Formats: sequence, structure tokens, C-alpha cells
Amino acid sequence: MAAPINPFYDPATTLNSSQFHIFPHGQFPPRDGKQNLGAFTNPGHELHLVQKPVPVPGKGQVVVHVRATGICGSDVHFWKHGRIGDMVVCNENGLGHESAGTVFSVGEGVTKWKVGDRVAIEAGVPCSLPSCDFCRTGRYNACPDVVFFSTPPYHGTLTRYHLHPAAWLHRLPDNVSFEEGALLEPLTVALAGIERSSLRLGDPLLICGAGPIGLVTLLCARASGAEPIVITDLAASRLEFAKQLVPSVRTILIKREETSKDVAKRVRATLGIEPSLALECTGVESSVHAAIYSVRFGGMVFVIGVGKEMQSMPFMHLSANEIDLKFQYRYANQYPKAIRLVSGGLLNLKPLVTHRYSLEHAMEAFDTASDITKGSIKVQILDEE
Amino acid sequence: MAAPINPFYDPATTLNSSQFHIFPHGQFPPRDGKQNLGAFTNPGHELHLVQKPVPVPGKGQVVVHVRATGICGSDVHFWKHGRIGDMVVCNENGLGHESAGTVFSVGEGVTKWKVGDRVAIEAGVPCSLPSCDFCRTGRYNACPDVVFFSTPPYHGTLTRYHLHPAAWLHRLPDNVSFEEGALLEPLTVALAGIERSSLRLGDPLLICGAGPIGLVTLLCARASGAEPIVITDLAASRLEFAKQLVPSVRTILIKREETSKDVAKRVRATLGIEPSLALECTGVESSVHAAIYSVRFGGMVFVIGVGKEMQSMPFMHLSANEIDLKFQYRYANQYPKAIRLVSGGLLNLKPLVTHRYSLEHAMEAFDTASDITKGSIKVQILDEE
Amino acid sequence: MAAPINPFYDPATTLNSSQFHIFPHGQFPPRDGKQNLGAFTNPGHELHLVQKPVPVPGKGQVVVHVRATGICGSDVHFWKHGRIGDMVVCNENGLGHESAGTVFSVGEGVTKWKVGDRVAIEAGVPCSLPSCDFCRTGRYNACPDVVFFSTPPYHGTLTRYHLHPAAWLHRLPDNVSFEEGALLEPLTVALAGIERSSLRLGDPLLICGAGPIGLVTLLCARASGAEPIVITDLAASRLEFAKQLVPSVRTILIKREETSKDVAKRVRATLGIEPSLALECTGVESSVHAAIYSVRFGGMVFVIGVGKEMQSMPFMHLSANEIDLKFQYRYANQYPKAIRLVSGGLLNLKPLVTHRYSLEHAMEAFDTASDITKGSIKVQILDEE
Amino acid sequence: MAAPINPFYDPATTLNSSQFHIFPHGQFPPRDGKQNLGAFTNPGHELHLVQKPVPVPGKGQVVVHVRATGICGSDVHFWKHGRIGDMVVCNENGLGHESAGTVFSVGEGVTKWKVGDRVAIEAGVPCSLPSCDFCRTGRYNACPDVVFFSTPPYHGTLTRYHLHPAAWLHRLPDNVSFEEGALLEPLTVALAGIERSSLRLGDPLLICGAGPIGLVTLLCARASGAEPIVITDLAASRLEFAKQLVPSVRTILIKREETSKDVAKRVRATLGIEPSLALECTGVESSVHAAIYSVRFGGMVFVIGVGKEMQSMPFMHLSANEIDLKFQYRYANQYPKAIRLVSGGLLNLKPLVTHRYSLEHAMEAFDTASDITKGSIKVQILDEE
Repeated sequence: MAAPINPFYDPATTLNSSQFHIFPHGQFPPRDGKQNLGAFTNPGHELHLVQKPVPVPGKGQVVVHVRATGICGSDVHFWKHGRIGDMVVCNENGLGHESAGTVFSVGEGVTKWKVGDRVAIEAGVPCSLPSCDFCRTGRYNACPDVVFFSTPPYHGTLTRYHLHPAAWLHRLPDNVSFEEGALLEPLTVALAGIERSSLRLGDPLLICGAGPIGLVTLLCARASGAEPIVITDLAASRLEFAKQLVPSVRTILIKREETSKDVAKRVRATLGIEPSLALECTGVESSVHAAIYSVRFGGMVFVIGVGKEMQSMPFMHLSANEIDLKFQYRYANQYPKAIRLVSGGLLNLKPLVTHRYSLEHAMEAFDTASDITKGSIKVQILDEE
Repeated sequence: MAAPINPFYDPATTLNSSQFHIFPHGQFPPRDGKQNLGAFTNPGHELHLVQKPVPVPGKGQVVVHVRATGICGSDVHFWKHGRIGDMVVCNENGLGHESAGTVFSVGEGVTKWKVGDRVAIEAGVPCSLPSCDFCRTGRYNACPDVVFFSTPPYHGTLTRYHLHPAAWLHRLPDNVSFEEGALLEPLTVALAGIERSSLRLGDPLLICGAGPIGLVTLLCARASGAEPIVITDLAASRLEFAKQLVPSVRTILIKREETSKDVAKRVRATLGIEPSLALECTGVESSVHAAIYSVRFGGMVFVIGVGKEMQSMPFMHLSANEIDLKFQYRYANQYPKAIRLVSGGLLNLKPLVTHRYSLEHAMEAFDTASDITKGSIKVQILDEE
Repeated sequence: MAAPINPFYDPATTLNSSQFHIFPHGQFPPRDGKQNLGAFTNPGHELHLVQKPVPVPGKGQVVVHVRATGICGSDVHFWKHGRIGDMVVCNENGLGHESAGTVFSVGEGVTKWKVGDRVAIEAGVPCSLPSCDFCRTGRYNACPDVVFFSTPPYHGTLTRYHLHPAAWLHRLPDNVSFEEGALLEPLTVALAGIERSSLRLGDPLLICGAGPIGLVTLLCARASGAEPIVITDLAASRLEFAKQLVPSVRTILIKREETSKDVAKRVRATLGIEPSLALECTGVESSVHAAIYSVRFGGMVFVIGVGKEMQSMPFMHLSANEIDLKFQYRYANQYPKAIRLVSGGLLNLKPLVTHRYSLEHAMEAFDTASDITKGSIKVQILDEE
Repeated sequence: MAAPINPFYDPATTLNSSQFHIFPHGQFPPRDGKQNLGAFTNPGHELHLVQKPVPVPGKGQVVVHVRATGICGSDVHFWKHGRIGDMVVCNENGLGHESAGTVFSVGEGVTKWKVGDRVAIEAGVPCSLPSCDFCRTGRYNACPDVVFFSTPPYHGTLTRYHLHPAAWLHRLPDNVSFEEGALLEPLTVALAGIERSSLRLGDPLLICGAGPIGLVTLLCARASGAEPIVITDLAASRLEFAKQLVPSVRTILIKREETSKDVAKRVRATLGIEPSLALECTGVESSVHAAIYSVRFGGMVFVIGVGKEMQSMPFMHLSANEIDLKFQYRYANQYPKAIRLVSGGLLNLKPLVTHRYSLEHAMEAFDTASDITKGSIKVQILDEE
């Protein structure tokens, strides 16, 4: 049963507005910074730039001028495949949920923010009602009534002016850029996973996958004192990127024909010790297996990535080795910590942004992000003041 | 790589003894209580009664006159299938590891025990060396050099006189019978699982399977204050047994044609709440799935049973619901607690013994235990003083 | 810095009402069930029955006809001493926070409740705002803006008609009486402590103090499978009460002249084992010390009671034995579990109510509760339909 | 009741040897590297250099040529005060337990080591028997039969040739020097505390005390990703040292006349956030209080230092803020991790050694270590090959 539409962020308000306009492919609006543009997809797997009304903040709301937005794998997935699990693109749907910007206007009763304040946007807004078991017990990522911007039916934050509840913005310190502010979102996924994993100082660690989540996880793991760390990937270029990001990391290039048990042997040999934890950031069955065969008796495999609906598992190996399997779904209560770590210099996210586009050229940004030959790690769309 | 044979309990000592004798099927030795009998199987899936030498205790060792031994599913499995995972029956191999008895003779340096002391036998004897990471850190069930009696190549405790290290016997209080003493072994498996699970007072709980382990787990869960509890099984008779054991338990009779998601719906409806934990005691794929679909966001499925080597899992459901999957392998540090709970009256194990045989009739005991139509829960072999 | 007054429950509304009337001592209003009576104290350490306006529920609010209220030690303390820590009686202040009753009237937008519904009242109402770190992370007992009824300046629930937010009522199953419903409040304190303690099945346990909290804790500990359990008190009568409540509990009568180390020796001897946990329910320094000296290396002393502002501690004993010290402050997220346990029959709270009074005779109830020679455990004030 | 003397390391063997010789103060033996020298104290608070027999390794034993030993505060304390708690200097007693060196000779059955191997010495040797609850459950620091070298009655490792069980040596990688190898011992204390504390990536942290343990703790906390970190001390020079060691640390110079509550205010202001954890490395009452007043509701104060036998505590503040108090006693299972972290470059211990002496000049080393005006952090005694 789907949750009822939250009236404060009703996607129909945008779609039914007389100002809503879809630009034909390749056509750009004049750049005057006044229109509210956005990147949308639809059930026909089209991607287009749209014009939207500039929202007016209601009680407790703020409009943010979005200055930087990263493209997430899920944005590409909604575009190309039209769904992720039960979440289905049923209409024109705005994309993007990794954003930071400045406060553009504030609604009634908002005292925490003033125009011009620099903020990161927490894209998932739970109900916060005491009657919601998950909101009341601190696991608000499980709130069944969450408004998660860019997850259908709600429009995303890849737009110029985004309407948001004041309570779910986070102040960016002066030494944290908008690009970094937008990177906080994937960072919080990794931080949430690491917080719920067993990772502690000095733990030997395997990270599977050197994509954006794997690399952010690598930064966090190094900052947490994991030692030694090995990271795996199918692409040598990504392993090189990992090595530049964290020179002390050890790397293993996976060959497609290798068995998971053989990968596990290489993991143990490369580390010189059995890892106590694997942070699995691919969600690919063979990689999950390799993680399971790698960790020691009593170890943990923590899956941060998403993958196929059903997957096989080496059940008896898990059992005979008391290996814990855990999973991360989005995040809760991570933004303040993420900001502290970036501002404090413990995590240097900057190298992760490999490609930048203006809002008007968002379509090209998606082309780059979805084309594996382009070698992008994180593609961002930036908007000037 | 197999562990080297522990010379103190070398199975060849028994097999090469001139006194070792296999009785033809149906032939019984005279009952005079002097010979050392035992139940053995072999790679040809035969089961027979054997005569063995009476062991002489060495330094730090004790010989126990075994008074009660329960038949475990794994004993039947070794007999019928010749192996469990990497553990293969390669020779005549003694069965049984759920035993209690009296001290018959003590070796040099043993001060803790005297002849006649009533004891439970902890069947797995780890190396206890400080160089063993697992023994040194309290997870001795993972010791690679463990001698686990009845797991090939070591002979089991289903014998009259069993040689054991003094340190791995546990004193039975006067109010704990030999039958209960033998039941401590399956109890420790359940206790170990529950200790490593998240189970706390007032947690709504699903138990999958009402076999011996499921029923012992049910007793422990009720003693832990789980509420409400629902137990599932394919056999109505086992659910009735569960209901007699713990009248407040709710029961669900699984139909073979039902989907796991449908079972999960019934679990939630029967409990009136989503369970936070499932203790899975069957190891059967469809049952594990039902457990996974039943528990709430953030819940745990704890597998105590064993099952197929590879199994499919609803990976994305686990991920989107942050469900933890954990497993139990044997047990460590549970005997003193188990004895406390039985002696203190919190766990009444007595009803679990449904069938009793003398040592000379051990073959019939195995027939009963392996024949599902007999409706046995726990079959025990008893030996008089 | 004190929190601002919550306007929805502003105590001045009652005090400034023209209907507010203090009955002279010994004078009773006619019993017709129409007036809203309440028990109040003031900075002059007076206790009196007052008449108050019947509240009218606003949006999201409910008025409860309170049918049973227990007197807590803190109610007596506010009356006799005028303060608990920073919480000071500065005006006429209504008492009572252990209450259950029926829904009398419902305000706008309340769909969960209808007139006549049987409910327990959760007396502490936190802000539930996402900007509150504690409310957002599930530890709402730490909310700095909490309205805790009966804690100055807010009036209590020991009244006939109490105004409450709909979200903070809990449905009573048919088999849970109003008396039990009122006892849920002290029960949640014990449950919160036990949840945050290390208590698991089979743990040897010391409970210090056999007053209302100690006895409720005893019930919970037995239901959690603690074994063996010893409880201490200075009064033989309370230990007898404990023994009737939980026959398997062991008891130790503390002598005032005994040293804490001597008490600890008796605790260990009585249990036959060093407890892994002590649930300290007195807050008295010598008792805390006895708990500390009793538990084993690596054990925990969990303090549920309150006590002197500053207390001495055996620092080096704590250090050399790695003993954890933890404390409970009120409770969070415990009511649903408490109701499950009482309704499910795992906790029998009924014997705890030793004295009952009508609302008009509330003053006598306080006399009984505050007079140690009366031997009361829990005094309740009941009101008919 | 004192544990019986372990015959393998009986201190009398040394004391009764004809070769045992106490050098008069100021007299040095000729430096030829052949004699076995050691630093001893006695009940008369004398400190002297002694000559001892070169031990011969028995079965499972190794003799280590000690190449570097650090002086611990406890060594100075035994010398100056003759006791720490129940551990009393009753005879001539060898000092030192922070040592590393090379294997000099190996006893029967030792296959893991050969002459010349570089090793760190784990100074506490527990019984490792399965009958010892603490050794069997991984908390061997609580073993009642531990031989802790330098804790009376056992002689210490501040000697040229030290007899040790082969199982309790740890291999030093080539890139870890003897000085670092000797520093592993205080490091393991900090690591054990941090492992048992709540410290995780991004936690705001207070460290009390910038002595050797405080500084090692600071290195570990930074490597664990604590952020922000503030460290306190009474000495500006130590705070400067801390700042050089970890430039991003914030410092607070404590004034003796300041109240603990005022210190707590400065801690919170300096961090800009309430710390979730305080690692208390002084054991001084006022500092423990400051830690308690500093941490947030639900936070933890973890005491690594030792202090006065009895200390006052703000009991009600602990209670009303649910602050956990924990303590560390020595360490267990930390050496492999410590070596991994130093070898992997996550912890740079080198700057901590501020003063170095030869074994013949050990007396001067103690003078430096015990004289606060010398400004030493870690004084080490080195011996050439």
C-alpha cells in the first residue's frame, strides 16, 4: 500500500502549473538565472530539461537556490529502467537528491535560516510524528510516510529553486564548498553503513567496488583507522583512482572469470590477514560471495550497495563461520557528523567530482554519468549565484 | 586442510585395539555392564553396535560412565549420508555427543573430580592454546584444532565408557537428571544462538520449526520473556507438542504450497505485530524466506539450523528493510548457564525425551529417531549404574 | 536555563481559572463525579485537594477521565521537600503521573481515539521536533522541552479530567485493568533500565532494594530469565513481599551496621556465583557500594534509583574490575512493550497495589504512602465511572 | 587471597642465585654485554642496578635480549610508594614491563621463534586454562593467576635477558623499531580502552590529560576519526607537545582553582558541541568530574587512568543524564592490532620517546622519569646488540 501524497510537496502542484514547460531536446532557455529549471524523466525513459514555477515557502518551509547537485546511480536507473523495486516512475518526475545551495526565501515561523545561508539539503523528509515507530525511535529512514525528493512521486532537487522544510537543512561551514555539500549525501550513506557495521580502529577491511559509494566508503574507512584495507573492482582505472585517493590502500583487480573463492584467497593473501569486515558496495552476487568467503569466522559482511532482487548465498559457509550479514538503507542522523568530518579535514571529498555541468546542460551531465567509457566518478551540475 | 589428529583421542587407538569388535546386526552382548559398547557408523552407511576397550585416563583426563545420550539429527545424517559439509565419515566412526554420566576413573593430576561425580560432557574440546586466536578470544567453537566427539574422525560419546579431558566436564546438581544432563547439549546450541541474537524481554518473536532445536529454543525464548511468540511447522503434531510445552505460544501450520510471503502475512497477523526477531530452526530455504519477510524493518533473522549449501535470498528485501542475518555454529561458554537455568527451574526439558532405549538396543533407538512416522522428539539411550 | 512553558499545557490556565478552588483540609466536595478534582502541593509543603476546570481538548488533544493513579516516591518528595534537583515547586502544583483511564472527550483531528476508549497515560510528552537531537534519535526522555505532568511547573495526572496529547496515550487491552494501567508507569522505568542494562537469560543478578521499583524490577528480571536472583532490603517485610511475588528469589536482609564489602560477600555466597549485573533500585551510597563490590570482573551496576547529589565511589575497585556503571533517567519507547508483557501474562503487577483510596480521599492516600510504618508498596487513588 | 607463585617464573630463582648481585649506587659493571643486568627496587624504596643469572629457556620458553624498555608511571610508583593497591613490593623486585628485543635462545618445542627474531614482549601472561572463566572467554586481563612481569612478586623486563613463554611474544615487522616495540605496551592500554569505549568515526571527544597515556590515546583517537578532539592538562608544555603530535587537536589549559563545571563549559565551548565521549587519562577526581559534566546526555566517560581508592562522583548528574562510566584494566588481545597500526603508519609513536639511557645508566633514567621538571614524556632504556 502506497503512502498518501504529502500535500506540502505534492508533485501535481508543479506538473499542473501553467508555468510547467518541457524544453525540446537540445533547446536551452536563455540563461538569466530567473527561471526555475529542473531535470525530469518519465515512464517513456525520456530525460528532459523543464521549466517549473518558483515555489513560495509556506509555514516552516524554505526555498533553496540549489548551487550544486550530484548525479546518483539511482537517478540514471530511474531514467533508464523506470523503477527501483516498488518505486515506479508514473509521470514526469524530477531527478536529483544530492544537493547544496543557499537559502533563497523563508516561510512563516522560520527563525533558524535567513536568505543567503549556505545549506546542504537532506533529501529524505520523514513524518517526525510520535505515532511513527521509526521516527520516534531514531530510525527515520524507515518512515513509511517519508518524502524522499527524486523518488517517485516526488520531484528531485536537481532544479534551481527547491522547496524544503526548514528542519531538514544543514548549515555548511565556510570551509565546505557547495560541491562538497552536495557530496554529503552519498557520504551519509557510507557513514550510516559504517556506523551500523562493526568497523573499529585497526580492523582489517575489505571494500568491494571502487565506484562513488565504494570510494567514499574508502575515505571513511581510512579515517576510521581500518588497517589494512583492500579494495576490489573490475576496472583498473577505478583502482588507480582509489590509490590516488588513499595511497595506503591495497587493490585487487577482479577478473570476470575468477571464482568468488579465488577472489577471497587473493583478498586474504593481499591483506596478510583475514578481514573481520567486508563493506560490499556493488550489490553484485559474485562480489557478495567473495566478501563472504573472505571474512574470518565471526566476521561481518555489510552490504551498502543495491542489487538483484533475489540472490544466491553460500548459506552453510555463513553458518559454519558465524558470519553476520547486514544492509544499509539510505541513512538517518548522519548529516551533522558528515559536515563535521569534512569541515574538520578528516575526509577530502573534492577529488571525487570529475565532471561539472551547468544546469542548462544537465542532459549532457546525465550522458556522461551513464556512459561507463567516460570514466566519471561523480558528475555534478552547478548553478551560479 | 584438515587439522592433525589429536593424539590423546586418536580414533585409531580404538579401531586398532584387539578388543574392538563389531556385533552382527541383531546380536547383543550379554548385559553385564562390564564391556564398553558403542554405536558406530561407517562409509557404507551401516550402523552397528561395537565393543571397545575401556579407556584408561591419562594426565588431566577422566573416564565417564555415560548414563544418558540423546540422538541428534547430525548423528542420523552421518549414518544416512556419510558427511556434513567437509566432515566425512572415512572409517568406523562412533556416534553421539549429547551425553551425561558419572565419573568412572580419574587420571593423574585431576583434583576437580572424584569417582561417582555426576557430570555433563561438553563434546567439543578446543585446543585452549594462547596462540589460537579463537580460543584466546572466547570463541572456542571456531578452534580449528577442536576435537568434537562424534564428528569424524573422532568417535562419539554414545558408548559406555568415554575418555574426556577433566576441564571439559560440567558438574550436574542433584536436581538435574542424567536425561536432562544429556539434553544440555542441544540446549547450549539454542542458548548460544539466543545470546548472540537480539532477543530481549518483550520482543515479539517468530520461531521457525518445532523440532528438537525449535522446541528447546521455544523454552529458552519463553524464559527470556519474548512476547508474543509464534512457532511454525509443517507437522500439526509438533505444533501440538509445542503448545503443551509452552501453552501461551501461538502456532502456524505451514502448508507446502504456501508462498513465503503468505506465511509472513500469517505470522504478522497471528502476532498482531511485526516480530523484531526470527529464530530460524529449520535451515530450509522457504522457511528462511518466510522469516525474512516476517520481521520488521531493522529486525534480525537468526539461523540456528543447518541447511543446503547454497540458498537463494531476497537480497533487496533484506537491504530495503535493514534486516540482519546471523548464524550459530555449535556453542561456546554455555554449559554453566544451561545448568543454572535447568537446575533453577526456568527450563523444563523433561517432556522432550519421548523415547528411551538401553545401550544394547541403540540400533532401535536410531530407527525410531530416523523414522518421521514415529513422532519422536528426542530419543535417548540410557545405561544403568 | 529553564525551558519555556508549553502553552498547550500552561499551568497558569488552571491556576488562574475562576473555578480553581482549594478545599480546606478535611473538607470534601460532594461526590457527584462532575467536578474536576486534583491533588496539589505548594512551596509551603502543604498538600490539598483542589477543584479545577474541566479541560476542553484542542486540536490533537484528548481529555482522559482518570480512573486510577499511583502515588510515586517523587510525588511525596515534591510535597515534603519541594524539589528534586533543579525541579522546584514554585506554585500550587498538581501531583501524580502514574495514571490510566477512559477517553472522556476528543479534540479536532483526533481519529485514533473515541469516547470510552481505555488508555494508559504516558506522562512525559517530548517536543517530537526533528530539530531536537534527542527526539530525533529515539532518546526522547532527554528532550529539554518535555512536558512531564506533575514535574513543576506542569500539573499532574492525579485529577479526574486530564488534558493530554492524543499521540501519547496507549490503548489498554481488555484484560489489563485500570490499576494495572496505572502501574505501567513505574514498570516502564524498570523496563527502560533493563533494556539498557546487560541483562540476558541466565545471568546471575543482584537487585538492591525491594520498594516499588525494586519489586517491579524483580518481576521483569524473573520474566527475563535472570537466574539466580537475590534481592536485598533493610526491611524484612519487604523481602517477604518479594518472596511472595517471586518465590524463587533469594533474599538478604541488610543490617545497617554492615559494611558494603560484607554485604557483597553475602550476595556472592547466597547466589553461589558472582553476579554479572546489579540492578540498584535504592540510590543509597552504601547500597551502590555493595552492588559494586558484588559484581564480577567485567560486570555492570545499573542504577535505577535516585539518590544524593554527590556520592563516594570505590574508584579503584571499579577500575581494577572493569565494572560498568550505568543509570536510567525516566524512560522512552517502553509503553507498548509494557502493555504486551502485562496483557500476555508475563508480568503480574496486581499484587503491588496494597492500598486504594477514592479521589476525594487522596490526602489520606498520601499519608499512607509517606508513612513507612503502614507497609504500603503501591498506594492508588481510584475513581469510579 | 594471593595467587600461588608460578614456578616457571619464580622470583626466588633469581634472588637465591649465587650470581645475584646488587651494585652499590653509582657503581657500574664493565660494559661487555655478557652479564644479565636489571633494575630492581625493594620495600625500602631503594632503586638499584643488579646482576642476575642469564636464564635458560625451558619447554615452550624463550629468552629475549631486551633492546628497549620504557619506564611506566607504575614503575616509579612501586619504587617511591612500594605498592599499588593490593600489589606490594615485599622483596627485591625487578621493574619494567614495556619491552622489545630479539630472541636470544629458545627452549624445547618452540618452533615459532628462532634466535635473532625481533619481538615485542606482552608482559602479562595469563594461565590460559579452560577452567579459568576469564581466559576462556577472552578477557585474560582478569586472570587471577596472571604472571605480570614487574608486578610483585614477579621481576620485570627491564633487564638484559628476560625469560618468557614463547606464546606471549609478538613479531615486530622490519619497519617497527625496538623503541616503537617497547611503546606498544602503553599503546595497548589505550587501544583496549578505546575498543571498549563507544568511540566511532566523527564522535566529538574530550581527552583528559596529556601524559604518556593521554598522548597515546590522542594518537589512537585521531586515527579512529574522532572529530573534534579537545585535550586538557595542567601543564602548557604537555599541551604544546600534544599539538605538535596532532596539530588539529584543540587544547585547554586547566587552572587548579577552576571548578569542574567551569572546565566542562570550556570543553563544550572549545568543541562547539557536547562530546559524546570523554577518555579520562588522569584518574584525578576533579578531572573525572569535569569529564562527567562535559559529555552529553547518553554519553560515556571512560577512565583509562588510575587514581585514589575512593572518589566522590556527581551521582545525580550521572543519573539525570544517563552517563555511562567505564574503566580499563590493563589489556587483552591488543598486540596484533597495535603492531598493525604502527607498521601501517596510522600511529606515529616515535616522537613520544624524549629521553634515552643505556641499561647501565638505568638509575638516571628513573631520576629523569620521576622528575616532573625534566619534562619527559617517555624515558627509555636501550641496550645494544
